[in-house]
Amino acid sequence: MADSQLGAITDLLRASPLDMGGDPHTMRIVFDEMIGSHPVPEDVRTMTVELGGVSAIEVTAGGGEVSGAVLYFHGGGYALGSAATSVDLAADIARRSRTTVYTVDYRLAPENPFPAAVDDALAAYRGLLDRGLPAEAITVSGESAGGGLALALLIALKDAGLPQPAAAAVLSPWADLTQSGRSHETKAAVDPALTRQALSTRADDYLTGADPRSPLASPLFADLRGLPPLLIQAGTYEILLDDAVRLAAKAADDDVAATLQTFPGAPHVFQGFSAVLAEGARALDQVGAFLRTHLDRQAAQAGPPLLAETASPTDGS
Amino acid sequence: MADSQLGAITDLLRASPLDMGGDPHTMRIVFDEMIGSHPVPEDVRTMTVELGGVSAIEVTAGGGEVSGAVLYFHGGGYALGSAATSVDLAADIARRSRTTVYTVDYRLAPENPFPAAVDDALAAYRGLLDRGLPAEAITVSGESAGGGLALALLIALKDAGLPQPAAAAVLSPWADLTQSGRSHETKAAVDPALTRQALSTRADDYLTGADPRSPLASPLFADLRGLPPLLIQAGTYEILLDDAVRLAAKAADDDVAATLQTFPGAPHVFQGFSAVLAEGARALDQVGAFLRTHLDRQAAQAGPPLLAETASPTDGS
Repeated sequence: MADSQLGAITDLLRASPLDMGGDPHTMRIVFDEMIGSHPVPEDVRTMTVELGGVSAIEVTAGGGEVSGAVLYFHGGGYALGSAATSVDLAADIARRSRTTVYTVDYRLAPENPFPAAVDDALAAYRGLLDRGLPAEAITVSGESAGGGLALALLIALKDAGLPQPAAAAVLSPWADLTQSGRSHETKAAVDPALTRQALSTRADDYLTGADPRSPLASPLFADLRGLPPLLIQAGTYEILLDDAVRLAAKAADDDVAATLQTFPGAPHVFQGFSAVLAEGARALDQVGAFLRTHLDRQAAQAGPPLLAETASPTDGS
Repeated sequence: MADSQLGAITDLLRASPLDMGGDPHTMRIVFDEMIGSHPVPEDVRTMTVELGGVSAIEVTAGGGEVSGAVLYFHGGGYALGSAATSVDLAADIARRSRTTVYTVDYRLAPENPFPAAVDDALAAYRGLLDRGLPAEAITVSGESAGGGLALALLIALKDAGLPQPAAAAVLSPWADLTQSGRSHETKAAVDPALTRQALSTRADDYLTGADPRSPLASPLFADLRGLPPLLIQAGTYEILLDDAVRLAAKAADDDVAATLQTFPGAPHVFQGFSAVLAEGARALDQVGAFLRTHLDRQAAQAGPPLLAETASPTDGS
């Protein structure tokens, strides 16, 4: 059953008019229609908010009690997508982690090149702190370019001397804008969604001449010491597989608590198909449990009262 | 607190008389005293059994209902240790996975070189099948050399055309007997237990001239396609870290469902210190949940209810 689900989604992706390397203005429309066209489930509540001057959508789901926050960054090669297109996935994570998810409308390239997105991510994180949420009650997450951006935010926090969040979960992160992973070759034939050429186009648009090995552009090349526990998920049928694998390897080198999970035959950001894909739902279950566990662990270590004190620098686990 | 626990255990390991590369006859006594000297908890039941002509200890713990089996392989560089020295760790896994654990007294080098251990592992697995246990009700696990042996068994099963077990969990696996991992250099100064020289001595004793890149000796170099879901755990303060990381990378390349978990500052097989080390207990919780989840999932797929409870994936760190 799982195999036929995966097969159907792979066929869908191969037939999709979305070209990640295409004209961004055209592709934004295609992307929005493809990703954002599902009706949002009834249990989802959304509200547009501002975090540190950056627009975001606050998402809760499931109707139960929530605590802690997830700062979420959508994918789309730093050029496509929006907070609105990511509400479905944000809600899936909110429901499973029993948190409030804030999905951020960071500025996009080519109109707003690097480091605009990182600046917005940092401003939104500061915005959560300014709302009185301590760092240990915050987690970060994101998919594809948004996964890379979530990691870039963690590096930016180190540079800014700000406290790290409780944990970070990244789905099929684009962590290497030089496209140097082996899977760009070994998985090219089986990836139904992405090509190296398309990613190179998006990287050029985003970087506009900046060093693609800059830690804030390609967190794979950053010093990861002091980062909080990381959950990294990838499908084995995607050219970005090695971004995930090498990220886990670098995290281990740098003494970070890292969990890498690879899903056989799954394409890029397969979690987005969780409604019809068992692997996607299971992967999101893991994301939810991971974020909840680390929020609870931090809360337990802080002792009562739960969220009263202001943040003190913590390097995670 | 966690840091001082890790510090105390690191000091203990550094002061230990155990030399993994020392004379095996002397070191067997040291190893047995060091690892096997704890009183076994009261909830543990053990019985010596024979599996396919190989001696093993059947271990249950916790007193509750159990289903499914774990075929377990102890560590000790293929030269030290025994089923008896591994009862503690086997019981910790039995308790958390609600299974029966069979820890195998496979033959040791230098008296019984490669592939004697692999032959015994395969015979024991066949023994479980012969007892009427279907492959989907079996999982395998092991630590250090025993982790490598558990993986070698999976390769041997492919070669023999036998069905794979439901899952495999390996703790600090020794998967590369050529000692080519980068962490042999990058983590040498912080590893309190192992040296490359000691492992090379143990590899030479075990291989007696056989190719160290043989898939059954160094499963890192095997074709891993068709293997069941893998959980791979390692500490970041061990020279075998890269065996774990590269194994996860190879599994991803080969479209295997793999989860890699790295634990900052933790030494080789830190799970053995779970009684006094929070990270060790948490890591074993993950092992137990992982094995249980996959046994339950297989049981659910098999149709008629084998188990009362349903799986709830909780194996995110």
